Amino acid sequence: MGTLSVFLDVPLTETDLPLDVYREDPSPKKVCLGHTGCQTDCPDEAWIPLVVQRVLLKIPQDPTLDHEYLPHLGMTAFTTAAMELLIGKDNHALLENRAGAVQTVGGTGALWIGAEFLNRWYKPNDFAPATVYISVPQIGNLGCIFHVAGFTNICTYHYWDPVNLTVNTQGLLEELQNAPDGAIVSLHEPAEMGLTPKEWEKVAAVMTAKHLFPFFDIEAQGLASGNLDRDAWVLRHFVDNNFELLCAQSFSKIFGIYDERVGNLIVVTKDNETLIRIHSQMAEQISMVWFCPSSLGGRVIATVLRNPALRYEWQQSLKTLVKRIMLIREKLKEKLRILGTPGSWEHLTAQSGVNSFIGLLPSQVDFLAKRKHIYLLPNGQINICSINSRNLNYVAQSIHEAVVSTTDEDHRPSTDLDDPARNSINEVPTRCRFR
Amino acid sequence: MGTLSVFLDVPLTETDLPLDVYREDPSPKKVCLGHTGCQTDCPDEAWIPLVVQRVLLKIPQDPTLDHEYLPHLGMTAFTTAAMELLIGKDNHALLENRAGAVQTVGGTGALWIGAEFLNRWYKPNDFAPATVYISVPQIGNLGCIFHVAGFTNICTYHYWDPVNLTVNTQGLLEELQNAPDGAIVSLHEPAEMGLTPKEWEKVAAVMTAKHLFPFFDIEAQGLASGNLDRDAWVLRHFVDNNFELLCAQSFSKIFGIYDERVGNLIVVTKDNETLIRIHSQMAEQISMVWFCPSSLGGRVIATVLRNPALRYEWQQSLKTLVKRIMLIREKLKEKLRILGTPGSWEHLTAQSGVNSFIGLLPSQVDFLAKRKHIYLLPNGQINICSINSRNLNYVAQSIHEAVVSTTDEDHRPSTDLDDPARNSINEVPTRCRFR
Repeated sequence: MGTLSVFLDVPLTETDLPLDVYREDPSPKKVCLGHTGCQTDCPDEAWIPLVVQRVLLKIPQDPTLDHEYLPHLGMTAFTTAAMELLIGKDNHALLENRAGAVQTVGGTGALWIGAEFLNRWYKPNDFAPATVYISVPQIGNLGCIFHVAGFTNICTYHYWDPVNLTVNTQGLLEELQNAPDGAIVSLHEPAEMGLTPKEWEKVAAVMTAKHLFPFFDIEAQGLASGNLDRDAWVLRHFVDNNFELLCAQSFSKIFGIYDERVGNLIVVTKDNETLIRIHSQMAEQISMVWFCPSSLGGRVIATVLRNPALRYEWQQSLKTLVKRIMLIREKLKEKLRILGTPGSWEHLTAQSGVNSFIGLLPSQVDFLAKRKHIYLLPNGQINICSINSRNLNYVAQSIHEAVVSTTDEDHRPSTDLDDPARNSINEVPTRCRFR
Repeated sequence: MGTLSVFLDVPLTETDLPLDVYREDPSPKKVCLGHTGCQTDCPDEAWIPLVVQRVLLKIPQDPTLDHEYLPHLGMTAFTTAAMELLIGKDNHALLENRAGAVQTVGGTGALWIGAEFLNRWYKPNDFAPATVYISVPQIGNLGCIFHVAGFTNICTYHYWDPVNLTVNTQGLLEELQNAPDGAIVSLHEPAEMGLTPKEWEKVAAVMTAKHLFPFFDIEAQGLASGNLDRDAWVLRHFVDNNFELLCAQSFSKIFGIYDERVGNLIVVTKDNETLIRIHSQMAEQISMVWFCPSSLGGRVIATVLRNPALRYEWQQSLKTLVKRIMLIREKLKEKLRILGTPGSWEHLTAQSGVNSFIGLLPSQVDFLAKRKHIYLLPNGQINICSINSRNLNYVAQSIHEAVVSTTDEDHRPSTDLDDPARNSINEVPTRCRFR
C-alpha cells in the first residue's frame, strides 16, 4: 500500500449557505436572514409548538410502543394522517384507494425518493428522458436533488417579476406552454407563490394540455394563509382534475421538529393496482438507502393529528405563528417607508408565508453581507421568521443603506424571455458540480 | 389527461424475505429464523438493554437539547464516541486526524453513502470501474446496495465451505489473489467469519499486495465474542497496516433501537486534508438525500458511550446476550445429537455471533418452510436469537426431519473453484432486477 491516497482527486466542495457564513462571523451585529426553519422572536431560537413539546415527552413513556424496525414505507398511522391533512379526508382519490403515501427521512428524502423513482420509471417519450422544470428560487436546492437522481435536462421557470416585484402569471403560462410534452414541473409551496385560484386553474389547464407531470413540494402547509385547507387548495385542485402526481410533504417547519426528519411522499395515480406497484418500487429503493424511516417524529405527528384536542391546539399555535409573520412583514414595510427607502415595498405584505423575495439586487445582497453582517440567499429570498424585535431596526436600516448605495439599474435581472442567460437549459447549480 | 396511467410499465417488485412470509402464515406453529435483529426469549420480542430504555426516557427531558437540524454529517459527540468504540481511542489514525466518521440513517445508510461515494470517486484503474467483491451470504443485500449505487461489476467471494461446514481460508485467499487490482472487498462482520488472527493477517497481506480496498460492515460489535475490543481486532489490524478504508457501523442490534436509525460511516485515509475533502463530498450527497440524520438515536448512544457507569451497564447487557446466544447454540447442537440427526453439527458451537450457517440444503430450507412453517433465508443462514425456549424443541425436531427426508447429495452446493455457476460475475440478486 503506497503512501499516496487513492482519493487524491476528490475535490473539496464549496459551501456558501448564509447560515454557515453567519455562524463563522464573529461580529455581534450579525443577522442571518436565511434560516431554513421558523424562529421565535429570540435570535437563533427555533419555534416549536407547546403541544409538540408535551407529546415528545409522552411518547417514550408509552409501554405499548417498541423499537423494532418500521416497514420500509413507514407507519401507516402517520402516512395516512399526513396525507389526509394535505389532500383532504374525503378526497375521491383517497376514497378510491389510488392515493397513498410513503414516510421518508424529511422532506428532502421525499423529494429524493420521488425524483429517483421518476428518473427510473417516468418515460413520457420513448426516446428522450423527461425534462424537469424548477422555479428560479428553487433551482439551487431542487435542481441538485433532481440532478443527483439522474436527470440531465433541468430548466428553470419564472413566476416572479424581479423588476416589478409581482407575480408574472402570463410569463409562467407561456413557459409551461413551451415546455416539452410530458415534462416534470416542480411546484414548490404553491400557496406561497401568490397566484390566484383562477390563475392556478389556467396553470392546471396548460399542464393538462401539455401532459406535464406535477411534483409538488409542500413544506409549510398552513403558514401561508394560517388555514390548512386553504394552503392545500392548489394540490387538491390538481387531484380533482385527475392528474397523476407526486407531492413531497414536510413537517419540520410546522411541527418544529427539524431533527426528527419526518417527511411524506404522496403518490396519486389512476388506480389502486398502479399505486401498489409504485409503492413496491419505492420500498425496494428505500430498503437499500435507509432501510426504513425513524419512528419518533412520525409518532409525534400521528399522535397530534389523530387526536382532535391536540390537533386543535397545534392549529392555534400555527395561527399565532402566521400572525407573527404578517406582523413582521408589516413592520418591515413601515420601517422602510419611514426611512424613505427608494422603491415600492408593497410586495412584503402582498406576499405571505415564511419565505419572501425581498426585492434586492445581487449587489445589494452582497453589500448586506460585506458591510452589515446580514446574510441571505444570493437570489434575495429571505426567511421572514429570521427577523425579530431585536434586529428589525438594524435590518431595515441596513436594507435602506444597501438600496440607496447601490441602485444600479444594470444589475436588475433580465425579464426578457428571449434573453439566453434567463433561459439557460441545464442550469445546474454550482453545488452539483461534483458530478 | 388520459385515463391510462403514465406508470403502466412499473412492475411489482418481489419480496421473499422470511419475516414477510412468516407474518402472513396463520399457523400457530410458525417460527421465523430470519429476524434481522436480536430477540429475547419471548417470541417476536426485540431485545433492548435496560440502560438504553432508561436513557430513552431521559433524553426528551433534557432542557438543553433543541430540535434544530443536525449538521449533514451528524453529531460529533456521537460520531466520535462510536468511532472510538470501534477503532480504539488511541488508534494512531485517529490521533493523526485522518480517521473520521459520518452519522447516517442506520447501517444501511452508511453502506449506501459509502458505496455511492466510492462509485463516484474511487477509480483504481483509469479505464475500468472498480469491481466489488461481496461474500456469498451478503450478495442479496449488499449486492443490491452497490448495484443501486452504480457499480456494475459485482462478484461473490467464498469463505465458507458448505460441504465440510468449515471456514475455507485457502479458497478465500485464492479468490482475493485472483481479483483485479484495486477491487473493493466488502468484509461483513469479520469477527463472525471464523478466521483466526493469523489468517486475517494473510488476508490483509494479499489485499495489500493486490491494492484491494476494504469496505467493512460491522453491525454487531461485541456479539461475536462478548468482548468489544476483540470483535474490533480485524478492523484495527487493517488500520494499523495503513489501509485506506471505509467501515459501516450499525447500532441497531447492540443497542436495540432499530427504529431510531443510527449508523456511522467511518473513513480512514492517508491524511487530514484528504479526510476533509472526502467528508465534504459525503455532506453534499447527504444534503440531497436525507439532509441530516435524526437525533434521538445518536443522542442515546452518545450518552451511554460517554458515561462510564452507563457504558459499563450496557456492556454487561451485551455479555448476557452473548451468553444466551452461546447457550442456544449448545442446546440446539445437543438436541440434534440426541435425535441422531445425520451429519456433524459441531459448526453450531464453533461459530459465534448472531448469524449462523446452519448447514442445510436449499431443498431442506424449502422443506422447513412448506412442511414445518419455519422460515429462514434460502442460503441456510439463521438468526440464532430467533430460537427460544418455546420453539427450540420444535425447531430441532423439524431440522432433523428435514435432514432425514432430503439428504440428497446432488443438492449440495458446489465447492469446485472452476465451477462457472459458483463464480458467476455480475451475480445480481433478484431483488435488483428493477434496474
